[in-house]
Amino acid sequence: MRKLFFLVFCWPFLTQAQVNQDSIIIKKMSDEIMTNGKAYDLLRQLTKQIGGRLAGSPQQQNAAIWGKRNMESFAADKVYMQPCKTPNWQRGGKDFASVVRVNGKVMNRPLAALALGNSLGSNGLVEAELLAVADFDELEKRKAEVKGKIVYYHSIFDPTIVQTFGAYGKAGIYRGTGASRAAKYGAVGVMLHSLSTAPDNAPHTGGMKYDEDYPKIPAVALGPNDAKELYANAKKGSIRVQMQTYGYFLPDADENNVVAEIKGSTFPNEIITIGGHLDSWDVNEGAHDDGAGIVQTMEILRTMKALNYQPKRTIRFVLFANEENGLRGGNKYAELAKQNNEQHVFALESDAGGFTPRAIGISATSPEQFKKMEQWASLLKPYGTEIRAGGGGADIGPLKNVNPSIVLAGLVPDSQRYFDLHHAKTDVFENVNKRELLLGAVNMAAIIYLVDQYGIPK
Amino acid sequence: MRKLFFLVFCWPFLTQAQVNQDSIIIKKMSDEIMTNGKAYDLLRQLTKQIGGRLAGSPQQQNAAIWGKRNMESFAADKVYMQPCKTPNWQRGGKDFASVVRVNGKVMNRPLAALALGNSLGSNGLVEAELLAVADFDELEKRKAEVKGKIVYYHSIFDPTIVQTFGAYGKAGIYRGTGASRAAKYGAVGVMLHSLSTAPDNAPHTGGMKYDEDYPKIPAVALGPNDAKELYANAKKGSIRVQMQTYGYFLPDADENNVVAEIKGSTFPNEIITIGGHLDSWDVNEGAHDDGAGIVQTMEILRTMKALNYQPKRTIRFVLFANEENGLRGGNKYAELAKQNNEQHVFALESDAGGFTPRAIGISATSPEQFKKMEQWASLLKPYGTEIRAGGGGADIGPLKNVNPSIVLAGLVPDSQRYFDLHHAKTDVFENVNKRELLLGAVNMAAIIYLVDQYGIPK
Repeated sequence: MRKLFFLVFCWPFLTQAQVNQDSIIIKKMSDEIMTNGKAYDLLRQLTKQIGGRLAGSPQQQNAAIWGKRNMESFAADKVYMQPCKTPNWQRGGKDFASVVRVNGKVMNRPLAALALGNSLGSNGLVEAELLAVADFDELEKRKAEVKGKIVYYHSIFDPTIVQTFGAYGKAGIYRGTGASRAAKYGAVGVMLHSLSTAPDNAPHTGGMKYDEDYPKIPAVALGPNDAKELYANAKKGSIRVQMQTYGYFLPDADENNVVAEIKGSTFPNEIITIGGHLDSWDVNEGAHDDGAGIVQTMEILRTMKALNYQPKRTIRFVLFANEENGLRGGNKYAELAKQNNEQHVFALESDAGGFTPRAIGISATSPEQFKKMEQWASLLKPYGTEIRAGGGGADIGPLKNVNPSIVLAGLVPDSQRYFDLHHAKTDVFENVNKRELLLGAVNMAAIIYLVDQYGIPK
Repeated sequence: MRKLFFLVFCWPFLTQAQVNQDSIIIKKMSDEIMTNGKAYDLLRQLTKQIGGRLAGSPQQQNAAIWGKRNMESFAADKVYMQPCKTPNWQRGGKDFASVVRVNGKVMNRPLAALALGNSLGSNGLVEAELLAVADFDELEKRKAEVKGKIVYYHSIFDPTIVQTFGAYGKAGIYRGTGASRAAKYGAVGVMLHSLSTAPDNAPHTGGMKYDEDYPKIPAVALGPNDAKELYANAKKGSIRVQMQTYGYFLPDADENNVVAEIKGSTFPNEIITIGGHLDSWDVNEGAHDDGAGIVQTMEILRTMKALNYQPKRTIRFVLFANEENGLRGGNKYAELAKQNNEQHVFALESDAGGFTPRAIGISATSPEQFKKMEQWASLLKPYGTEIRAGGGGADIGPLKNVNPSIVLAGLVPDSQRYFDLHHAKTDVFENVNKRELLLGAVNMAAIIYLVDQYGIPK
């Protein structure tokens, strides 16, 4: 108890000797990861041997077994499955969209298209006139025209927003709610510009949610090039389009969070969680989203054991079962944490791609607390990151309901390339760079080490 | 004169109003580049329509004509060629290396290999026993064993050095001088581990230089996988290898620097230079090295004219003719600057790849001067860069001989991926990301704008 008091009291006054000692240990971790890191090989296995891991799929189950076996081989104190029901959405067929008529002229031009995740099949071919709108404002203005039509949203990213997650947030609302907002006015289908920054034609899927008050109409994301062409043509005159999708739900599936643990020596009840999510969309290998977060999490376990690091606090390495279309993994983990009266003090997620790390984003509970943690900045700087206010991750978010004063954090990789491939077929192993991936793990290990050593300041 | 004095005097005291005004103009430039930027399309033309641009090649000539035509179309005040002789090294044939015997057993295993740039042909097939050494220290210790052998250097990057240019500096000396250091002791050929961070087998070429005192023996870089296998086998017993290369020099070629200019309104004699180099190696498209720097330079010209920006100082946009194997372009530019008594105050180069920008590296002439320029950091931060001490570029380096107090600077992109593809066949357009490329131009434009507005502090 005296020791705890001492640590808390001393929190803001790290001595130079402590900083030097910390920098030596962080350098050791970095050298181990950059020289002997297994994250890249693990990612190759996960993406090439197992493949895409849609929640409920056999691949997702295989990935959990693979994760457990590997974390056991890294000699965690214990590794266990946390059973968890997940949604079991099925794409059901090859999504189809086409332009059949432009200004009366027959066209029959197929469009690159993917049904949005969670959307339901069209029940046969739907053909209708297109109503192309820039945004919801235009939809509202033209609501009288919507009935019986297929609505197209020109949900492009604002290229002037430097950090692409900002633009994703703004465009993402069309994927999430666009179908029901159009169905409200009688639309029979929805198309949208993929949430993509890529100068290509790959459609990007991703989660949507129906409003139960309106008909559940089919919804597809179009390849960026096709979408832009369609929108340009729509400004010139009438267009008829077709779409056909096949989505449906099977009963919820039995999946698992995979949890590995190293027990703390001094404060075993204080739990630090690191994680990413095992599931991905069905159209790719889920390499950046979120294979990267999975293998970085496993890498930190491997490294701590390889260096015989004995944490003061209990560290959990969690491969969450389901994030993409349900967040069931994170919810289950938090639910059990609450049931078991666990004391969660800090959680860190990597779910923004395996790109060069730029920051550790920290959602502190007060500016004072953030300022204290920001003192660690000089220890991270040699590895390319800063400590930035604000951060977390979907899977660890529910822990806030377990402990409102938990500090949540996220690895912040460079965001320029993420939405080129996020939820598209291009999110494959070949598009992950080994050094970038490992360097993310280095910075995650560093912040975990610091929180483990010094705890969370008040 | 009074105005100049005022500016110099006031240099360290930017008012909040000035900062606000500057941030608005920089945001305008950024928005223009990120929304309407042509750099990516220009890079596609340069790499796909023109291709690799080895100094002295017709492609290099075509690239200069292409650059001039485009910069004219962007309405520079004037655009002109600066004739310049360049080396005219020819690869001459398909470089060959193979393992023919390991511990007496016949193997006949071809190795992925590329002759080093400037190296001379082997004059037929050379076969010899291999002497594999870790480094020059081992070579010196074993110098008595070298005679009649082919020396292999295990010149791998140190993976623990976070910024890869640091590791390149250390490994690069083997490419530059390894052949002559081995020839001194009677080696008949040299092989080395490619200067590569990639977990693949693509060999990386690059410039070397013979010491005139020793025989000019052939030298190749091996693909990383082959090199590692060869080195591992060499530790176990005797190996015989073969190599054949074809390099030779044609008489120097007639090439051109391409220079575009916007004349300064207030201090027309003060010259600011921005540039990159047109030439590349022959084995790839020179997309990152240095197509990126070329099109970023052109993009800034385009943007300034598109926004009707009238600079106070004269800004030069220079596509240097030859950097890779001679630096003749930069030397010629500086030579003419000296002849014409030009007053060069600042030069910025982009020649480290079209990756996400992390910093503007500035080589100031004093710590005080750097501190003053560092005040601009808050204006760059929204675009992802910091102002870092130290920086420049090979092509602009010779300007230091024209004006010792010139400030040289370089765009510092993220370095994790650069040496995966640098000088290898993988340096192609497909490996350049549009947003990363454009964001580099944004940060270059910002620092050029600030130097133009405020000049270089004393």
